[in-house]
Amino acid sequence: MAKRTPIDPGSGQQVLELTLGPLAECWGRENGHLSIDGQPLSARVPQTPAYLYSRRCLDAAAAALRTALPESIGIHYAIKANPFPPLVRHMAGLVDGFDCASLAEMQLAGEVANAEHNISIAGPAKSRAEHRHAIEHGITINAESVGELERIMIESRAMSRRARVALRVNPPFALKGSGMHMGGGARPFGIDSEAIPALLEQRETLAEGGIDLVGLHLFAGSQSLDAEAIAGTLDAWIELLREWQTTTGYTPDELIIGPGLGVAYHPGDRPLDFDVLAPAFTRLGKALATLGDGGDTTIDTRLELGRFLVAGAGVYLTRVIDRKVSRGTTYLVCDGGMHHHLALSGNLGAVLRRNWPLIAIDRLDDEAIETVDLAGPLCTPLDVLGKNQSLPPLSPGDWVGVLQSGAYGASASPGGFLSRDAANEFLV
Amino acid sequence: MAKRTPIDPGSGQQVLELTLGPLAECWGRENGHLSIDGQPLSARVPQTPAYLYSRRCLDAAAAALRTALPESIGIHYAIKANPFPPLVRHMAGLVDGFDCASLAEMQLAGEVANAEHNISIAGPAKSRAEHRHAIEHGITINAESVGELERIMIESRAMSRRARVALRVNPPFALKGSGMHMGGGARPFGIDSEAIPALLEQRETLAEGGIDLVGLHLFAGSQSLDAEAIAGTLDAWIELLREWQTTTGYTPDELIIGPGLGVAYHPGDRPLDFDVLAPAFTRLGKALATLGDGGDTTIDTRLELGRFLVAGAGVYLTRVIDRKVSRGTTYLVCDGGMHHHLALSGNLGAVLRRNWPLIAIDRLDDEAIETVDLAGPLCTPLDVLGKNQSLPPLSPGDWVGVLQSGAYGASASPGGFLSRDAANEFLV
Repeated sequence: MAKRTPIDPGSGQQVLELTLGPLAECWGRENGHLSIDGQPLSARVPQTPAYLYSRRCLDAAAAALRTALPESIGIHYAIKANPFPPLVRHMAGLVDGFDCASLAEMQLAGEVANAEHNISIAGPAKSRAEHRHAIEHGITINAESVGELERIMIESRAMSRRARVALRVNPPFALKGSGMHMGGGARPFGIDSEAIPALLEQRETLAEGGIDLVGLHLFAGSQSLDAEAIAGTLDAWIELLREWQTTTGYTPDELIIGPGLGVAYHPGDRPLDFDVLAPAFTRLGKALATLGDGGDTTIDTRLELGRFLVAGAGVYLTRVIDRKVSRGTTYLVCDGGMHHHLALSGNLGAVLRRNWPLIAIDRLDDEAIETVDLAGPLCTPLDVLGKNQSLPPLSPGDWVGVLQSGAYGASASPGGFLSRDAANEFLV
Repeated sequence: MAKRTPIDPGSGQQVLELTLGPLAECWGRENGHLSIDGQPLSARVPQTPAYLYSRRCLDAAAAALRTALPESIGIHYAIKANPFPPLVRHMAGLVDGFDCASLAEMQLAGEVANAEHNISIAGPAKSRAEHRHAIEHGITINAESVGELERIMIESRAMSRRARVALRVNPPFALKGSGMHMGGGARPFGIDSEAIPALLEQRETLAEGGIDLVGLHLFAGSQSLDAEAIAGTLDAWIELLREWQTTTGYTPDELIIGPGLGVAYHPGDRPLDFDVLAPAFTRLGKALATLGDGGDTTIDTRLELGRFLVAGAGVYLTRVIDRKVSRGTTYLVCDGGMHHHLALSGNLGAVLRRNWPLIAIDRLDDEAIETVDLAGPLCTPLDVLGKNQSLPPLSPGDWVGVLQSGAYGASASPGGFLSRDAANEFLV
């Protein structure tokens, strides 16, 4: 049928390289198989559907970022991107701290962190239990409103312990090209930037209330593939910090900045250009040094990243159960689906669903000569793995891998939908 | 701000009545409180966030449907709509059978069903374990492809047991006005209607292969609020059955028909008009009697319903944690969110998010004089409970109830997202 033109043809090799860029190197590719330590994934994983995360790829993503960053800027892992405990434990060896979004994430961070790691928690509706846990363990609370500052003071007083607090800023701008706007305009997150100076002026009052104002939490958006926009946003933050320093005399001791580094998910997406990002990070480091009294004060700065660190290290693996033709469309019905991988089905923040990088993991070199729709096992038309997707011809029993599945996968999906089994996860 | 015009103003009372229609009567409403047995829900439920399901409302929905149906047509409950075991157990007393979508659902149905109940399973990628369980327990398998018929024969032979099989039909039409098209055009579900006659001709070959062809599974779409369209689809099915009877001499022993009855979720939605549906059901009963050799053969017919039977009986309950104003927008940040109620956030099949019937459950009579945005506790802009929503003024600690939350709620949501607690569920 004429309308069914392939959107992103090419072999699995090509899809892998287009999607992951230099990080594609971390995946073994032997005799046409996606592999780890010379062994095909399809031989390595005991069952489908399953998520497989590669230690080597986690290492590679962190190393790529370190190379681009000045030494003065550290890295935090945002656990919400992938809270699989063995993966988080592995991340502990790669990063300088953890950002949490719940009590359970703080507990997990506490289990895997070493003495050098910083831990913080963000979230617009933190519970009393979350505040108390953070205060008790010296975890930085990113305060999202004046109301929250008051609640923190109440707990601090009740516990007779001081709270480490950073003000989460809702900036006057959004990160351009970002999949998720977290700033600019009205938001439930953070404190409007125009209200920040008045709070900074009151830092002694806060201190009397048990709050140690350790710094600021800066986050304007996520999942951007526009390196220039990310660089521009970092510059805009610096400008804001300078302005506040001038008007209020405040220099933060600590900064956590979410730069919003994205990954390539869809046809036409290309991995972030680190040739643009690296100089922007250098500029950021220098500006922060200047801001810190020309080197006398060091502003302990960490980039907070989730998706960028883990997405490329994960593959969702599923097998074809049925191959059928309905009115001119060839369907591969698979054992994996939206109950494990909601984002793949287009039901996690996408207005219109776009295809993902799907590859036949045992036929990396075969040309994608067939155009098919891929459906999951659920009794709902929402359970879509791919539409009009280019693949080598596949039959029941063949394996399909969904690249870029290491972030917001299993934990962000309705695992119990239709009372099917939760996803299996493996770190290798 | 001028752009923030209320979409659906009115007291909680009015929202309840507009949304549920006559079924609103099943909810107690005393002194401005949504209540059960005279007790406010906010006093009845030990904690938020939580789902509460009302037995009385489950009874009322089933009774409304029975009243509209001729006695010759039974009712099946599709467990996928809400698999909470106490609720499914309660449904056993109200329906004539269960439709399942997984091994776990078949096991649950087996636990709660009585000897009179029929059980069936549908799904485009059934596993071997599912086929074997169905064959062993005499569960009707809705076969979705010729490939599946072959796999059923293999298991039947291996087990030396006959399989009860219905052919799931992908019709040449879709249910108009339905939120989810399950038929018409190319689909991963069922067997294209034009391929059905050839299979009916081969029913002796199927029988030799261990398959007892017990009937047909007819499903053209779901979540329709257009009673005329539903009536028209039922007529179209009858026409198709007549045609197949003429061309192949086949009269099904059993029919399962998914009529696609919808519920009112969004501003402007109105509950289904049973004054149109009831005569359509009567017409269906008569046509089936005629089809069954003028009464000599009875076609055992059941309507399969999920959402319609349970949606109105459920309320998702959440409390306000923070009230904040950001750049002119008032936010109520709540303890419940998309990790429990994905559909409410607009991330379960909706292209554009629309508001849900949210009410202040302790101020049913108060006028909705405030326009607010409601956000959940998750660190993502996707966690939306309501935008530009009309409510009485609410403060931290106040309760909000989301009506129509009995179907595709907890089980269809990413309960582990951000490692937060799963939803509490109560049947009262």
